[in-house]
Formats: sequence, C-alpha cells, structure tokens
Amino acid sequence: MLIKVEVEKAARRIEQYIHQTPILTSQKLNDLSGAELYFKCENFQKVGAFKPRGALNFVLQLNEQELSNGLCTHSSGNHAQAVALAAQLTNTKAFIVMPNTAPEVKVKATQGYGAEVTFCAPNLKAREETLATIQKETGAVFIPPYNHEDIIAGQATVGKEIFEELKSVDFLITPVGGGGLLAGCALAASYFSPKTTVIAAEPSGADDVFRSFEAGKLFPSESPNTIADGLLTSLGPINFEIIKEHVTSIKLVTDEEIISGMKLIYQYLKIVVEPSSATVLALVLKHPEQFKGKRVALILSGGNVDLAKLPF
Amino acid sequence: MLIKVEVEKAARRIEQYIHQTPILTSQKLNDLSGAELYFKCENFQKVGAFKPRGALNFVLQLNEQELSNGLCTHSSGNHAQAVALAAQLTNTKAFIVMPNTAPEVKVKATQGYGAEVTFCAPNLKAREETLATIQKETGAVFIPPYNHEDIIAGQATVGKEIFEELKSVDFLITPVGGGGLLAGCALAASYFSPKTTVIAAEPSGADDVFRSFEAGKLFPSESPNTIADGLLTSLGPINFEIIKEHVTSIKLVTDEEIISGMKLIYQYLKIVVEPSSATVLALVLKHPEQFKGKRVALILSGGNVDLAKLPF
Repeated sequence: MLIKVEVEKAARRIEQYIHQTPILTSQKLNDLSGAELYFKCENFQKVGAFKPRGALNFVLQLNEQELSNGLCTHSSGNHAQAVALAAQLTNTKAFIVMPNTAPEVKVKATQGYGAEVTFCAPNLKAREETLATIQKETGAVFIPPYNHEDIIAGQATVGKEIFEELKSVDFLITPVGGGGLLAGCALAASYFSPKTTVIAAEPSGADDVFRSFEAGKLFPSESPNTIADGLLTSLGPINFEIIKEHVTSIKLVTDEEIISGMKLIYQYLKIVVEPSSATVLALVLKHPEQFKGKRVALILSGGNVDLAKLPF
Repeated sequence: MLIKVEVEKAARRIEQYIHQTPILTSQKLNDLSGAELYFKCENFQKVGAFKPRGALNFVLQLNEQELSNGLCTHSSGNHAQAVALAAQLTNTKAFIVMPNTAPEVKVKATQGYGAEVTFCAPNLKAREETLATIQKETGAVFIPPYNHEDIIAGQATVGKEIFEELKSVDFLITPVGGGGLLAGCALAASYFSPKTTVIAAEPSGADDVFRSFEAGKLFPSESPNTIADGLLTSLGPINFEIIKEHVTSIKLVTDEEIISGMKLIYQYLKIVVEPSSATVLALVLKHPEQFKGKRVALILSGGNVDLAKLPF
C-alpha cells in the first residue's frame, strides 16, 4: 500500500515540471448550490489535464538505461499527451498507440510533443496487440494510465495541493474513470486531511465504479456511453482497493446533468473544461441538501474539448 | 489631467470590492507568437469584465445624499452590470436603460444584482431620452461609462496591477471602444512603467479611434459593425486627449482575426473570453515581427459571451 511519504516524494519529484494549479471560486455558484465551492483547476495543468502528474512520477523514477528505448502507451486522450510530454522532458522517444477514431486535435497535440503515433482499430484488443508489437520492436517502457502505485501517487498531489491551500475541507469530490485521480486524492485526504469526506462523481452511462463499489467486487465497464469521454475506461484493481477503503460514496450523474454543470462552469467561472470535469458540479447540484453550508473542494480534471462541438 | 495619486487613490478605494485578477501565460501561445505573452484576466473580474473598477471608483466618491436617490445609466452590456453591482454594494437603487435588443443573459444578470431595467428602442437618442426621463423622476446620479476622469482612474488600476506584478513590460496592449480602459492603462504606464509602449487593438468594423488618432481630431463611430460587441461605442473626448498623449499606435484587426484569436485563447489558455478580449492576441499574431522576443502584457477585458452562439 502507498504510504504518505510516497505522495510527498512524488510531489517533490514532479514539482518543477508541473503547474501548481489555482483554486477558483464563484459567488454565483455558491449562491446556486448553497455550499462553499472551491474548484481546483487541472484544466490549466500542462497538456490541459491532471495526467502529467502521474506519468511524470512514474517516468522520473526510470534509470538511464530504461529511458534509452523510449516510453510507450495506448490512449485516446489525455494520458497520450502526458506520456509524450514526459518523454520530451526526459529526452527520450514516445510511442503512442491511438485508435483511428481519436479526435484530430488530440492526435496533433500528442505529435506536437514529438511523439510517434501509431493508429489501430478502436477496441482494446487492437490497442493492446499494436502496443505489444511496438514494445517488442523498440524495447520502450510501458507507462500505465492509472493501475499503478506510482501513477496513483502522482495524481495524489492534486489532493495534497488542495489540502495545503485550503484551511479545512468538508468534502472532496473528483470524477472517476480508471480511478487514478480518485484513489490518489482519497489517499491524500487520509494523510493530509482525515476529516474530509471523499466522494466520486461518475456518469450514469459508464457506471462500473458505482456498481463495483456497491457490490464490493470489480465489474468491468460494459459498452460505456457518455459525453464524458475521459471517464470511459474501466476501474483498475489497485485503484479499487484504495477506493474501497478511503472513499465514502460514488454518485451517478446523467449526461444532461453533466452538460448543465459544464455550461455553468463556462458561464460563471469563465473557464474551459471538458465534460468529465463537469460531473463534480453536477453531483453537488443534484444533492444540495448534503452540501449545504459545507466547504467543498471539486477537482476539474481537464479542459481538452473539441470547441466546435460544445454541447450547448 | 489625472495625476498619479488619483490612480493610487482609486486602487485603494476599490480594492476591497474587486478581484485582483490573475495573469496567465501559455507556452503554446508564446511559441506561436514568438513573444512572451502575459494575459491579464479581467474576464475573471466581478460581473465578468473590468467595468466595476471605474464604476466603483466613481460611486464610492458620492456622498450619502447623492447616493440616496440611486444610480442610473444606459448600457447594453458590461457597464450595466457594473453599475448594478456598485448600487448593490452601496445599498442604493440602480436604474438601467437597456435597448430592447440586449441579450437576455445580460438583462438577467443586471436584474440579478437588483437593478431596475427599463427597455427602449436600440438607438442612442432613445437611450438618452429614456434615461433623461428616469433621471428627472428619480433624481438618480448618472454613472458615465467611460468619458470621465474617475472612470478612467478606476480602469487605470488594471494597468497598475500589471506593472506591480510583472518585472518589466515592453508592450501593453488593450482593446479600445469608448477609451476608458485604454486611457487609464496608458496613464498607468506613464506613471508606473514609463518604458512600456502602449498600443490599442480596434476592430476594423468599428475604427473610429484609429481614424481619430490618425487625423488628430475626434470622429464619431458611424454604423459600427463587428463581432466585438463591447467595442461598438464612440471614443470619448476626455479619453481621446489622454490617448493622443500616451498611446503609441492604434492597430486594426478584422473579425476573422478576432475569431481566430478567440479560439486560440479558449484552446490554450482554457478560459472563456468575449470577442472584444481577443482583439489583443489577434493584433500580436498579425504583427509578429514587432513583438518577437518581447515581453507583452495583453488585457483580456471580459468574458461575457452568449455560449450558445460561439463563433467557432
């Protein structure tokens, strides 16, 4: 199990490469929710999402020889850019497998960091097979997206920063997909702010974490379908163990609620977020009685969205 | 003429009522422009634009008797909300004349601060006549939108904050409409950073400042037509005198250039701005040779935009 010192080490390890992102507030959103809301803006993070924290914490522990053959992963989204950035910062190559359905803007951004992108059919089997071939050819090190303690420790630094900046936090709410951010921040709460209740927001169209949490055993994600494209992945088993122990509840929000939350964030916080980020505000507005008068930290996980296809 | 101490007094007067807005940077936008760009985010200001700075500096100098009959103005946009906020903060009424074509979102926001909105036909004559009637009936004090030294001193605090936060600034670029922000920030530069060159960005579809500046005499705005709806107003004569003395040049940008700049701001800074704000980035990208390697502060004047009608 990850211990406190690993999170502190991760924070020092990645410090100079990432942004300490701001926490924003809005009187209008406080009035609307009846709570004191503190939005941690990982949409302002490098590559536009929290992902480089975990990827860098993993990569910066590799030795010269391990780094020499490059890094690889498969991803359709923010993890691809995070690994590409990590490779750039450590002067090595990145080999990224992306489904041929990945949005052009994300492909270009990944290539923009100097990564070599290989396309495959848009299913997990094709992604894993293509990656295996590349790994065999290049000897590149696989960088896991979420199911690894070093990744979790990196994402935990988001929570650590929140608890350092805010005096007291009644609730911490994060989106959940694979569980890296949620597991990391739940651990950070247990170490740095044990009185904080940690809750996750999950799209009802991709509810594997909700179902797994209720049943106490891991269910894979089955044909997930939600506008929150960052939350389509299946919960990782390492993440699940941490979540079972340190998270109080998983709550579902519909795509309609996500879109309403997203619009409110654009309108009142004046910032650009991707749908996954809006799940947390949607959750608070769905359960106002639970958060009334409370200090609630919400993690806005990213801001990479196709501006031509905003849902409002 | 406004003197340095008036700007310093304005800053102290309004300090507790406004946000000291952040300055954001983007490596991608630096790479794209070849310059070091510093974006002063007045889109995060109260009411979503810089306007409360000037309005509050004016209103907080009124005595109890002057305040007792309320405040009034005519505006289709951000100044309306600024006056409504100033009235709320000073416990008095706001009477706002708005054209019946004003966007519902701006009407509702103004009413949200408790202001009484009166609609009129969408032309200057109707606005002035309706306002005169209201002023006669109520005795409310008129709060000018830009052509007044106290308004200019309030807007100057944007520049003052920039020069306090950044060590050295080669260029300061602001949008220009009525000239309150530009005149204020040009004065602030002359007092707090005299080596800074001040340049204004104006939409080519509303080029009265450009024409006036070139000719050395004031031309009114004639049927202006631009997507930058905050910059449709005519330059004020008090503002013009300051601008002639302290501004180096006025440069035009087309609506297409404004829209491209706006999209880049959403994409890379991950923030919501209105078209007027994007004129400044459009200007830099239009004249890269002038700004190459320079430290350039750009004022993003506001973020009140109809999200359902984004131009990209």
